[in-house]
Amino acid sequence: MKVQILQEKLKEGLNIVERISSKSLTLPILNNILVSSEKNFLNLAATDLEIGINWWVLAKIEKQGKITIPSRLLSSFVGFLPNKKINLEVKNNNLICECENYKTQIKGLPAEEFPLIPKISEAESIVLESASFCKSLSQLADIAVPSTTRPEISGIYFSFQKKLLTIASTDSFRLGEKKIYLKNSLAQEYSLILPQKTVKEIINIFSEKPGEIKMFFSPNQVMFEYLMEETKHAQIQVVSRLIEGEYPNYQEIIPKKFTTQLILDRAEFLNQVKTASLFSGKINEIKIKVIPKEKKALIFSQSPDIGNYQSSISGKIEGKPIEISFNHRFLLEGISGIKSSELIFEMNGDSNPGLLKPVGDDTYLYVVMPIKTT
Amino acid sequence: MKVQILQEKLKEGLNIVERISSKSLTLPILNNILVSSEKNFLNLAATDLEIGINWWVLAKIEKQGKITIPSRLLSSFVGFLPNKKINLEVKNNNLICECENYKTQIKGLPAEEFPLIPKISEAESIVLESASFCKSLSQLADIAVPSTTRPEISGIYFSFQKKLLTIASTDSFRLGEKKIYLKNSLAQEYSLILPQKTVKEIINIFSEKPGEIKMFFSPNQVMFEYLMEETKHAQIQVVSRLIEGEYPNYQEIIPKKFTTQLILDRAEFLNQVKTASLFSGKINEIKIKVIPKEKKALIFSQSPDIGNYQSSISGKIEGKPIEISFNHRFLLEGISGIKSSELIFEMNGDSNPGLLKPVGDDTYLYVVMPIKTT
Repeated sequence: MKVQILQEKLKEGLNIVERISSKSLTLPILNNILVSSEKNFLNLAATDLEIGINWWVLAKIEKQGKITIPSRLLSSFVGFLPNKKINLEVKNNNLICECENYKTQIKGLPAEEFPLIPKISEAESIVLESASFCKSLSQLADIAVPSTTRPEISGIYFSFQKKLLTIASTDSFRLGEKKIYLKNSLAQEYSLILPQKTVKEIINIFSEKPGEIKMFFSPNQVMFEYLMEETKHAQIQVVSRLIEGEYPNYQEIIPKKFTTQLILDRAEFLNQVKTASLFSGKINEIKIKVIPKEKKALIFSQSPDIGNYQSSISGKIEGKPIEISFNHRFLLEGISGIKSSELIFEMNGDSNPGLLKPVGDDTYLYVVMPIKTT
Repeated sequence: MKVQILQEKLKEGLNIVERISSKSLTLPILNNILVSSEKNFLNLAATDLEIGINWWVLAKIEKQGKITIPSRLLSSFVGFLPNKKINLEVKNNNLICECENYKTQIKGLPAEEFPLIPKISEAESIVLESASFCKSLSQLADIAVPSTTRPEISGIYFSFQKKLLTIASTDSFRLGEKKIYLKNSLAQEYSLILPQKTVKEIINIFSEKPGEIKMFFSPNQVMFEYLMEETKHAQIQVVSRLIEGEYPNYQEIIPKKFTTQLILDRAEFLNQVKTASLFSGKINEIKIKVIPKEKKALIFSQSPDIGNYQSSISGKIEGKPIEISFNHRFLLEGISGIKSSELIFEMNGDSNPGLLKPVGDDTYLYVVMPIKTT
């Protein structure tokens, strides 16, 4: 391989793909990035066997070829170079990089040993607006937690029905759900569970990208693709395996009615719950006492070692008085996922889940289980 | 104690003193901040028995008193409060804090158990311009390393002679020296060794402060004092123990002449040494080959596992050709300590220390030992 490419282009690609390369002791080649030429494109690829990523850029290809190179080293090295033309050449399992007054030879591993990243571009696909899709994902990405006994809830659930995509995430103590309205309609319905790591990488890779990404479906995998503006050739492809199993029928636990409803200033409520958390001790418990008659709610926490806390918040408060306890961490994450200036908090007695949602936005909801204090 | 104070004032003081409170398991009260009234001032104090800090602010004192409170908790709690008046009241070893719709009771420990922080304001003193003094300290603060066999070099050396303050720091592989010209002259000469931790805290506390700090001398301790602008009462006092022992006569190892001299662009040299460090392997070695005839120097590094690196840098280069090896980390810290756009690098053969200094500034120098490759 003999290739010429501008430093800032190569750096951009390395920053994207190096995230996926893993620190594998059993399979050292996974620490490497596959650098190869494909006609008049330079291709970078990395995989951790769960997610695979490909990145392409137009380059001056003088000789076709390929090699794999330790990812952090290559990325750090290229990062230090001036923004000038870089000459890359493969010789005897080494990559020779020359750029102005810099010249290095980096030891690689043969490209033939690098695992194949599957391509599934023949499958049915859907178009997603990248920035808003990633914003939606980020409202849910942190809710799931790794679970060996229930692997299905360690991922994020996607359900496509005609023009509606519903995403959900839970750890059985809380649940987040987000609806996204699609531009085009799918011929069939899809539901799938994407690993949490994939979702987080999708957010990292595509959040700042203008325009659209395409999502392709196959029975065991999905692919996200972003095209180059000029050539319409793929610039980025992320392929991920799916998590097997059936996602729990979470719809059942979303409260459909309420006996107590609060409409609160989001920032003020967030700050009071954060402050209360300082005093909540080891079980993370904070108590909310709603007094509809006074249009206010009191927030309490206490710990025998630390002391005790009380604050009050006013708002539009209706329904029955209630005293209910929550884990402050779960409540905080729900409030943080809401972006509107006011939020709605609905409850059905002290032993049923509470519901948080934005004011003026029906696409997001968050269900949180109370701490039963009996 | 019963005190009224504005949230942002109290927060400012807590942010300063909480840094000094330590996580001591044997003496839990050191985790606490002493909160006390002194006439019409509120005083916050913390100590780790090596450094002690006092901070004062004018406040509305309704009843004198004192208590100690866990520092992180108090600081986090006050940080969350709105910028309004806070009422602080001591009741039965509890601190009651009220601010708008927030009310807490925090468990404390009796103030009587808190260690005394010595005051040495009767001693001789010198005036230092706080921002430039801290900038000078930061050029040297990271060079010293903890040493149980040679505790004296684990601190930073200060030598006061009339209107000249010389500061030095070494770990026996490299040495930094900075000269500061003082406004006033001291009656006697002082030399002392300040713990590295104290120097780092001084930088953190006083870097952003406008105006001057005063340094007071006593046989076993020093104090740094910053006054309130309005009242001329002390706002901050930092008292630190000194390190006993005699600082090595480091002047001997500063090269007084050179056989090879390079004048280089600082940023370019820094970048090349950083890049070379990626390839330098486990012993951190990078080699510099100076070719005066071609007015350039080559920088090499290599590691059997990784590959090899070469770059070249041009500059004003005079004297004898030389090939010399350095630990890249020590070289990098020397270059980073220099703030001018060009630097001078002087050498005396491949087994004698090299000297780095800024162009156009005689107040700073950095001596670095080569790696002997014989």
